[in-house]
Amino acid sequence: MASASERAAPHDGPITIINVFEVPAGQVERFTAWWRTRAHIMAAAPGFRDARLHRAVSPQARFQLVNVAHWDSKAAHDEASGSAAAQDLLRALREDPHLRVLANPATYEIAVELGEPPATKP
Amino acid sequence: MASASERAAPHDGPITIINVFEVPAGQVERFTAWWRTRAHIMAAAPGFRDARLHRAVSPQARFQLVNVAHWDSKAAHDEASGSAAAQDLLRALREDPHLRVLANPATYEIAVELGEPPATKP
Repeated sequence: MASASERAAPHDGPITIINVFEVPAGQVERFTAWWRTRAHIMAAAPGFRDARLHRAVSPQARFQLVNVAHWDSKAAHDEASGSAAAQDLLRALREDPHLRVLANPATYEIAVELGEPPATKP
Repeated sequence: MASASERAAPHDGPITIINVFEVPAGQVERFTAWWRTRAHIMAAAPGFRDARLHRAVSPQARFQLVNVAHWDSKAAHDEASGSAAAQDLLRALREDPHLRVLANPATYEIAVELGEPPATKP
């Protein structure tokens, strides 16, 4: 348990946030519009580096949307998430009767890396 | 349904493959060792660009491991996956009594992109 809590401790340095969304295929367009608005709020905050919302090619894929984002620190991300603008938007999402989205956000580190990731949209 | 099958059609160009793994936190090290071996086989195949296996910082995260990989084409990825070496390794994983892993691989396109993704490990 000690090692587990150590691994869960906040990072000081750059982090990767991955959010795996469970959203019905028929709601992907509507949710993406919401997400884009939120992403612009987040991107204006200090410490934001980049974000890529990936959309499954097949409507049968279990996870229709996956966001991979990088921030200067966990603290910077948490502060942006907690801003009034971000919180207001989250409330709007929860109250939208046309969207039933389960978000699974978590902080990740890179365990294995092979090749050079693209600097531009593949 | 027509538009759905069109969207699911194979891409000719570069693709992103994301694999969301459900694996007990206590099996992450063992599975990562297996994954690394497989990644080196895949990386040697034509059309491979890059892969990053992300590991959750918290052992409580629902998805302990997420791979984000880029390939020149879906055909190149499928051919590498179907190779004898890759298939043998998949069999070894399935027969390993110490690993209970649910993989959720799918092909993705980029729906929204903000900022410049890092060219090196963040």
